[in-house]
Amino acid sequence: MAASSFGKNITVTTWGESHGPAIGVVLDGIPAGLSLSEDYIQKYLDRRKPGQSKFTTARTESDQVKILSGVFEGITTGTPISLMVENKDQHSKDYGNIARSFRPGHADFGFISKFGLRDYRGGGRSSGRETIGRVAAGAVCAKLLEELGVSVFAYTKSIGDIHVVDFDKDQRDKNSLYMPDGNAAKKAAEYLEACMLNQDSAGGVIECQISGLAPGIGDPVFDKLDACLAKALVSIGSVKGVEIGDGFAASKSTGSLNNDGFRADENGNIYKTSNHAGGIMGGISDGDMIVVRAAIKPTPSISKTQQSVNEDGENIDMEIHGRHDPVIVPRAVVVVESMCAITILDALMSHMTDRVDYIKEFYKK
Amino acid sequence: MAASSFGKNITVTTWGESHGPAIGVVLDGIPAGLSLSEDYIQKYLDRRKPGQSKFTTARTESDQVKILSGVFEGITTGTPISLMVENKDQHSKDYGNIARSFRPGHADFGFISKFGLRDYRGGGRSSGRETIGRVAAGAVCAKLLEELGVSVFAYTKSIGDIHVVDFDKDQRDKNSLYMPDGNAAKKAAEYLEACMLNQDSAGGVIECQISGLAPGIGDPVFDKLDACLAKALVSIGSVKGVEIGDGFAASKSTGSLNNDGFRADENGNIYKTSNHAGGIMGGISDGDMIVVRAAIKPTPSISKTQQSVNEDGENIDMEIHGRHDPVIVPRAVVVVESMCAITILDALMSHMTDRVDYIKEFYKK
Amino acid sequence: MAASSFGKNITVTTWGESHGPAIGVVLDGIPAGLSLSEDYIQKYLDRRKPGQSKFTTARTESDQVKILSGVFEGITTGTPISLMVENKDQHSKDYGNIARSFRPGHADFGFISKFGLRDYRGGGRSSGRETIGRVAAGAVCAKLLEELGVSVFAYTKSIGDIHVVDFDKDQRDKNSLYMPDGNAAKKAAEYLEACMLNQDSAGGVIECQISGLAPGIGDPVFDKLDACLAKALVSIGSVKGVEIGDGFAASKSTGSLNNDGFRADENGNIYKTSNHAGGIMGGISDGDMIVVRAAIKPTPSISKTQQSVNEDGENIDMEIHGRHDPVIVPRAVVVVESMCAITILDALMSHMTDRVDYIKEFYKK
Amino acid sequence: MAASSFGKNITVTTWGESHGPAIGVVLDGIPAGLSLSEDYIQKYLDRRKPGQSKFTTARTESDQVKILSGVFEGITTGTPISLMVENKDQHSKDYGNIARSFRPGHADFGFISKFGLRDYRGGGRSSGRETIGRVAAGAVCAKLLEELGVSVFAYTKSIGDIHVVDFDKDQRDKNSLYMPDGNAAKKAAEYLEACMLNQDSAGGVIECQISGLAPGIGDPVFDKLDACLAKALVSIGSVKGVEIGDGFAASKSTGSLNNDGFRADENGNIYKTSNHAGGIMGGISDGDMIVVRAAIKPTPSISKTQQSVNEDGENIDMEIHGRHDPVIVPRAVVVVESMCAITILDALMSHMTDRVDYIKEFYKK
Repeated sequence: MAASSFGKNITVTTWGESHGPAIGVVLDGIPAGLSLSEDYIQKYLDRRKPGQSKFTTARTESDQVKILSGVFEGITTGTPISLMVENKDQHSKDYGNIARSFRPGHADFGFISKFGLRDYRGGGRSSGRETIGRVAAGAVCAKLLEELGVSVFAYTKSIGDIHVVDFDKDQRDKNSLYMPDGNAAKKAAEYLEACMLNQDSAGGVIECQISGLAPGIGDPVFDKLDACLAKALVSIGSVKGVEIGDGFAASKSTGSLNNDGFRADENGNIYKTSNHAGGIMGGISDGDMIVVRAAIKPTPSISKTQQSVNEDGENIDMEIHGRHDPVIVPRAVVVVESMCAITILDALMSHMTDRVDYIKEFYKK
Repeated sequence: MAASSFGKNITVTTWGESHGPAIGVVLDGIPAGLSLSEDYIQKYLDRRKPGQSKFTTARTESDQVKILSGVFEGITTGTPISLMVENKDQHSKDYGNIARSFRPGHADFGFISKFGLRDYRGGGRSSGRETIGRVAAGAVCAKLLEELGVSVFAYTKSIGDIHVVDFDKDQRDKNSLYMPDGNAAKKAAEYLEACMLNQDSAGGVIECQISGLAPGIGDPVFDKLDACLAKALVSIGSVKGVEIGDGFAASKSTGSLNNDGFRADENGNIYKTSNHAGGIMGGISDGDMIVVRAAIKPTPSISKTQQSVNEDGENIDMEIHGRHDPVIVPRAVVVVESMCAITILDALMSHMTDRVDYIKEFYKK
Repeated sequence: MAASSFGKNITVTTWGESHGPAIGVVLDGIPAGLSLSEDYIQKYLDRRKPGQSKFTTARTESDQVKILSGVFEGITTGTPISLMVENKDQHSKDYGNIARSFRPGHADFGFISKFGLRDYRGGGRSSGRETIGRVAAGAVCAKLLEELGVSVFAYTKSIGDIHVVDFDKDQRDKNSLYMPDGNAAKKAAEYLEACMLNQDSAGGVIECQISGLAPGIGDPVFDKLDACLAKALVSIGSVKGVEIGDGFAASKSTGSLNNDGFRADENGNIYKTSNHAGGIMGGISDGDMIVVRAAIKPTPSISKTQQSVNEDGENIDMEIHGRHDPVIVPRAVVVVESMCAITILDALMSHMTDRVDYIKEFYKK
Repeated sequence: MAASSFGKNITVTTWGESHGPAIGVVLDGIPAGLSLSEDYIQKYLDRRKPGQSKFTTARTESDQVKILSGVFEGITTGTPISLMVENKDQHSKDYGNIARSFRPGHADFGFISKFGLRDYRGGGRSSGRETIGRVAAGAVCAKLLEELGVSVFAYTKSIGDIHVVDFDKDQRDKNSLYMPDGNAAKKAAEYLEACMLNQDSAGGVIECQISGLAPGIGDPVFDKLDACLAKALVSIGSVKGVEIGDGFAASKSTGSLNNDGFRADENGNIYKTSNHAGGIMGGISDGDMIVVRAAIKPTPSISKTQQSVNEDGENIDMEIHGRHDPVIVPRAVVVVESMCAITILDALMSHMTDRVDYIKEFYKK
């Protein structure tokens, strides 16, 4: 069944396999009148491309995006925006044992179980390259959000057991791990080098902070804003957990500690005295910063010997060599940011039809 | 915008407010030919109803379900199943300060921000009573899954800091906390009594285990099985986090430890040597037990004094008296089970159209 | 698969069988702040109820609607509106040959083919009573449209070969055939009496005119406004054709005759010099009156002997006695109006997110 | 709002403007295991390409399709199939008055009203070239249907007032008008030449016949098979009417004439004694040939002088010169066929989950 689309007012449909001719996305529902260039989108894609450091695969994917539709004279027209990146660096290598074996921690076995066959080259549809489409779409949504005063900022919160301690937003883009804490980044780099020496890999946690979002965005039942964000994040490969606000820690807290009190300032503006909720209550934004986190598992491709089975049902030993990130967290930061941007913009647009007054005011003009 | 439906092949639409005349659900897409009675559904509803112990509100809601459509002579007909529960125990009390104030930790402020007005009686649409519809729908889906050999089993894994240690499935229904560990249940009860004495409340973690699901169910991109489960769980009020398999712990592990190896037994059946993945790889079931967890925050309604603001923007002190659960985790167990059952059945049905061979075999008959 | 919902911003989900305990609809996405009473909805339902004349079945269905949710103190809250009508006049008659035979022109054979079983009482889910949910939902949408200055007016354009000649809007509600032409109504009544004498039935055409709709509503590709209206109308039982504007006549016209020219009046307002297009061009409203028509087949239930087959595959002769309308066109007028109202309001709401400027203006407030 | 997708199990999303770099479609939900080549799709595209006769524009669009994803080693993989055609023959001409005027009968005015701006080159998104994506997707669906024994056959039934009289299926592809009646084709050609001499254009009717479809496909309420077909057809530009079976003629018939009787043959197979219903009863296929028709308006682009208005609100006279089909009916035949194929396959797949027995049989394997 069709399952490659995300969103309601805005619908993002990604397509493409790692080693096919191209990979891309169709972004439908972006309103007319947004200035948009390939350069703008490219900046987002560059944040996820490999080869940024020794901790990302050395593949020299240029990943140049092309706008194929939906933009005329530099302005969106309201019609579907088709974005494409050609797959240039496709090694026509012998996939050997990978072609007919199930790599531990990968989607190979699932694909065969589901479809009966698979494009085994580079993970096929389950390759990290699928996220190119998400990031390209996310860049467009983030641009519109930015013009509305909503900012979406994701960062590496931890790698293995190394956590950001002194959060300094400006530091994020100053190290290749996208950690907003120079010290933590240094320690994390050391940890990763040890992992690599050990033919092993690492995971981590990405946090995303969304600021400037008005209260009243989201829905009270199935399409709670946090439920949509949770789906958005877990739909990213390797994500094994999600938290909103205090997350799992809230389960150990008490009501009196976990509840965020309300106060009004001298101008009558209502604010919360704390933000354990992470900016969402009852599925609806409360005007505070939205805080969500995604737990990323260690990269499954490792060169250490692992137990596996091939498609003939024979037990084999498997070592996965080649170009693999010892940790995907840094490159996934922009993917998290993108999925959040898409989700938030979609929800924001839904809010426009929430009240009869809104509709009357709009329509009477 | 419409946002009260969940699912694709099966669509669950809940409706109703806590203190309106009734609350219910329309369940569309359930195939024809399933034996179904009000009694069967009622058993699920009874697991979430209040008054089961001193840790749940004393309201004597009978919550009797009526089947209004979609079942003829005890068998589903393939048409929408409308299920309704009348709201009997509606106190026509004076809502006083609650009617025009924002309870901390509740959806009140979000509702006003979103809709400009709200049904303040008992939480209105954001009442826990909304889950009646989910549970009624979940019971139907669980029944069909059961007939397919798929079981969905949720339980209280922790309350506050008290965790299940010696897991014994049979113990779950022997204590009112739905903890499959008598000892832990006893300790948790003590903890809850302390909370109550302190005019406070507690949270906890619910785990759901899905057994008997074939590999190949789910999707590789946006509608990953775990992404859908994550949305399903976070769409339940008070859920602040979700984990699949090892969850956040995976972020601190390494690839060699976290990867599940494959082996084939003497009959050629492939199995995993561990289940860190929680039964889902690349968004698709792998045949192993699916394991998901939801973190539930402490009940926000507490009688301790809290800071709040009323609709006139005045700072107030607020104490919430009345009938409130000091912990909602036990009653939410069946809600988690229900949302998982709906999600799993929906995904299972999607799989039926995944291969040309499946379609040919079906159609040629 | 779930297939009982209609609409995107507004989602209408009907449920219920002719002879079950009740029939109803859940209407999700109606914005908060609309005054709504059971009386208002009842007026619409009364237009479709039987017993209005000798040409409609004599069943005394009172069809009293109840609002079960989504309205608080007479105002919509933005949450799902659940509307229900109890099925009071259910004869527990012996369905005899109908229970296990396929009535010509009815859905019986389709139901058995699709579901393998069916609720044979009174047509079950395919009963005309299913439209109660549509009309109740349509009434709500029509009310909001009315407040926006958009009117939706349907009428009987022809019965058999008797057409409205002198269109007089005010005449519509002055005859039980809902024909806005007293003369035509008289002739049509004579024609129907002849049909009845002959144990036969008649069909006709319903036209719907939508006035006051701004230009720019609709979509240019799959969700063209006329495509959505076409689906809305053909989804009504017995509709076998749909036309927009000149419809089939346009296929015989030429470009120079069929094109509507544009002119601007002295105030710069643009208008069309004719309306062959029926108010929709390229799928988008053009500000002119929208004109659509639905062709309704003759009532299939007739007392004349017909050839049929029973579920044992035996050839039988069949006479359908009982309470049946010799023509359903008059009662379907309000159903057409309702489906158009739902479709138009849904499209109008979609337009609110069409431009970056709209979003900025909305959000900056 | 996103509105460029069609279908549920199968989702077709088209993108692209007439004069952008390319035009294409993403086809999601096609099951794994279908042999598919660019050549197969190309044959369908060639049927809609211009330059096939003097009655189609002389533009030499080669319209070569490329498969960008979803096919591996000639077999579909179950993942989205991205198909693209580059726009080669884009004249960088001066659009002059067309750029800022509203062509009668076109979508120009609607686009400006909706989006506030438009890509005026060659109709932009409302160009007939948008149907390239539909036809490419339709070819894929038609292939799978063909393998199931379901054939979808559309043809020109009339042009202006010239109708097919002696239907001979084999004749359809022997004339450039795709009329399965050599004589009628000849007369229609004469009629078109007269239109052209007169600087005018013509319309017509396309019929589509679907054979080999089992009974039981479709849905009884909103997603009636005919309702979905109606939307599919009216979503094609220039379609102003749709009929199923006897269509509008049924509105003048009587029940005894219009009802199709049932009989069983000696093998117990049930058939209808006539097919006024056009193969669909109560929204569900009845095993008979499905017959639908679409009325196509005359090509709006004519060189005769017409009244129009420009974007400054000034009244102007307009003559549209250049390459335009005097009738689009012949090229739209394959578009109708494609939209029907998509709709039918989608509905067929929905049927797979209609019964508990089907699911059990599928899952137990």
